[in-house]
Amino acid sequence: MPYSTRRAALRATLRDRDLDALLVTNLLNVRYLTGFTGSNGALLVSADSDTSTVFCTDGRYTTQSAHQVPDLERLIERPCDVALVKRAGRVRLGYESGHVTVEGLDALTGAADGAELRRAPGVVEELRLVKDDTEIEALRMACAAADRALAGLIEHGGLRAGRTEREIARDLENLMRDHGADGPSFESIVAAGPNSAVPHHRPTDAVVRPGDLVKLDFGALVGGYHSDMTRTLVVGRADDWQRELYDLVASAQTAGRAALVPGTALADVDAASRDVIDRAGHGEHFLHGLGHGVGLEIHEAPALSKAGAGTLLPGMAVTVEPGVYLAGKGGVRIEDTLVVRQGAPELLTLTTKELVVV
Amino acid sequence: MPYSTRRAALRATLRDRDLDALLVTNLLNVRYLTGFTGSNGALLVSADSDTSTVFCTDGRYTTQSAHQVPDLERLIERPCDVALVKRAGRVRLGYESGHVTVEGLDALTGAADGAELRRAPGVVEELRLVKDDTEIEALRMACAAADRALAGLIEHGGLRAGRTEREIARDLENLMRDHGADGPSFESIVAAGPNSAVPHHRPTDAVVRPGDLVKLDFGALVGGYHSDMTRTLVVGRADDWQRELYDLVASAQTAGRAALVPGTALADVDAASRDVIDRAGHGEHFLHGLGHGVGLEIHEAPALSKAGAGTLLPGMAVTVEPGVYLAGKGGVRIEDTLVVRQGAPELLTLTTKELVVV
Repeated sequence: MPYSTRRAALRATLRDRDLDALLVTNLLNVRYLTGFTGSNGALLVSADSDTSTVFCTDGRYTTQSAHQVPDLERLIERPCDVALVKRAGRVRLGYESGHVTVEGLDALTGAADGAELRRAPGVVEELRLVKDDTEIEALRMACAAADRALAGLIEHGGLRAGRTEREIARDLENLMRDHGADGPSFESIVAAGPNSAVPHHRPTDAVVRPGDLVKLDFGALVGGYHSDMTRTLVVGRADDWQRELYDLVASAQTAGRAALVPGTALADVDAASRDVIDRAGHGEHFLHGLGHGVGLEIHEAPALSKAGAGTLLPGMAVTVEPGVYLAGKGGVRIEDTLVVRQGAPELLTLTTKELVVV
Repeated sequence: MPYSTRRAALRATLRDRDLDALLVTNLLNVRYLTGFTGSNGALLVSADSDTSTVFCTDGRYTTQSAHQVPDLERLIERPCDVALVKRAGRVRLGYESGHVTVEGLDALTGAADGAELRRAPGVVEELRLVKDDTEIEALRMACAAADRALAGLIEHGGLRAGRTEREIARDLENLMRDHGADGPSFESIVAAGPNSAVPHHRPTDAVVRPGDLVKLDFGALVGGYHSDMTRTLVVGRADDWQRELYDLVASAQTAGRAALVPGTALADVDAASRDVIDRAGHGEHFLHGLGHGVGLEIHEAPALSKAGAGTLLPGMAVTVEPGVYLAGKGGVRIEDTLVVRQGAPELLTLTTKELVVV
C-alpha cells in the first residue's frame, strides 16, 4: 500500500516541524495519503502513528470510504475540518494555511478544543513533488492513453480538412477513454489555422483548412493522474514559414529537455529553452513559462519558469512546452511529459516530435 | 451585456458596505462579472464606476481577454491578485476572505500600497444566489441537453442488460454533447443493481442485469452553467419492493418541489420532503441533504438541508433530490433542477418521473 508509506513519510516531517498532528483539508492531499476519491473528506494525521490518525467524510461516502480507507479510523460527520479539529484535542496542530481560507481559519479556531493551530503550508505538496513508483506508473498509463488516442485519430483520418476543432477534440477524448483513460485530464485544446496562435484556445466550430497548423494540447486522466502533451501538425502541405517556426520550437524543446538534470535550478531549465527562441528574435512571442509539474493536478509544483525557485530532483514529473505564437497567423507548441532521472529524463509521451503533415 | 449590469449591482452593495473597491479573486466570480473564461484572472471592482475597474490576467490570455473583456481596462501581469492590490492604492479594499487563503492574505498584505484590506466574504456569491435571465437561459439549455441525451439513450437501447455502467456513462456524455453541451457538468453517476445503493457511485465495468435498478445522475455544461438530474429506472421487470421504494421517493420529491415557494425557510424545504421518508420508516436511509443551488458551480448556495440557513428567493435555481438507499440491495434517487418563482417553481428537467421500465 503506497498510502501507509506516504503517511509514514509525512509523520517524519511532522516531527521535524514540532507538530503533533496535521489537519489535511486539501482533498487532493487527502487522496494522496489515503486513496479516497470522494468529493468531501479530511484527514487528521498524527505524528505518532496510523492508529491515532483519523479520516472523516460525510454520509454519502460511508460505503465508499469503508472500501477505500479500510486501514484508518473513520468518522462520518460534517463539516469534516471542524469535526477533526475538535477531535484533535490539546495538541500542536498544523493546518494547511495555503489551502485554508481566512474565514475557514476562523471556523477552525472557534471549534478547536485546546488545539494550538499552527500554519503549515505545503507540507504534503512537498512530498508530492517527487513521485513514487505507483504515481509514475499511473502517469505512464495516462501518457500512453494520449499517445494511442492521437495515433488512432491520425490513422482514421480524424485530422483531415473540413472537420471542426470541436469534432477533433471530442474524438481525441473518446479515443483516450478507449485506451483506458477515465477521461481527459483537462479541457482539450484543438486550434486550427490562426487559432493556433492563441495559447489556450478553446475548440470551436472553426473548420480545419488545407495548409493549417493544427495545435493539439490534451491529456488523459488515469487513477487521478494527469498526462499533458502538445503536438502541432500541418494539414496538406507545410509552408516554409511553418517549417521554420516548427524547427525553432523543436530546437527549444530539445534544449529544455536536455536541461532536465537533477540539481539544475528551475529557472535555468526555462532559460535553456527560452534562449533558443530569444536568439531567433521570437522572445516576445513565447508567452508563458516552459513547463510545470504534473500529477494529481494538471498544474502543480515545480514551475519551470523565470520565477521558479528551487532545483530539480529525481522523480519529479514535469512538462517541457515552449511555444511561439504569431498573432493572426499561427503558432507552434511542442510539449512532453517527462520524469526527471539521474542521467537523462524519462520520456512518458512517446508520439514523434518530427513535423507530421496529415 | 449582463456583465455591466452585474457589476453595477455589485457596486451598489460595495457602497452599502463602506468599501471603495472589491478585489475579486474567485475565478467563477470573475467570470460572472466579466465573461472571462480563462484559467487565471482577477478583477478590481471600483465602487465608483466601470472606468476605474481593472481586469488582470496573464500572457496566455492576452488575445482571449481582449475579446471577452473589451469593456474594461486590462492588465497583463502575474500574479494577478498582487498586481491588482498594488494598483488599488489607498482605499478601503474588500477581499474575498471566503476564498483567499491564510497564506494568500499575507501576500496581499505585503503588496498593499496603502490599501486597507477588509474581509468581504461571499459578496459576489450573494448576487449569484438569484439568477438573471441570461443565466436561467443557459441552465434551461443545459437541462434540455441532459433530457434529450437520456431520451436518445433509451430510444437506442443504450440501457439494455449486458451493457456496463461505464459504457452507459460515456454514451450519456456524448449524447449531451450532440445536443449542445460543452461537456458533462460533473462525473456522471451510473449505478446498476446493488451499486444504486451507493449515493455517489462511480461508473465501473459492472454489467446491467435484468431486474436491476439503474440510477443515472448526470448533467450538462452549457456556457459555464451546470444542469443536474437523477432518474432511476428498472431493466426488464420491476419487483414490488422496487415499485414501493420508487413511489416513496417520488412522493418525497413531489413534496419537496411543492415546498419551493419564495419565503420558505431552506430547512423547511428539506423537512417537507424528508418527513415523507421518515414517516415510511426510511429516514436513516436518506443519507444527504434534499438539494443545492446550481449555476456556475454544480454545488453552490443555497443548501436545501437541515442546516440550511435563510429562505427561498424568486430566481434561485436549485435541485430537489431525495433518495433512499438500501445497502446491498439497491437505491432510488429522483432529482430535478428547478427555478424558484412566485407561485409554482419552473421545472427545467423535463424527463418523466414515472417509473420507466426499459
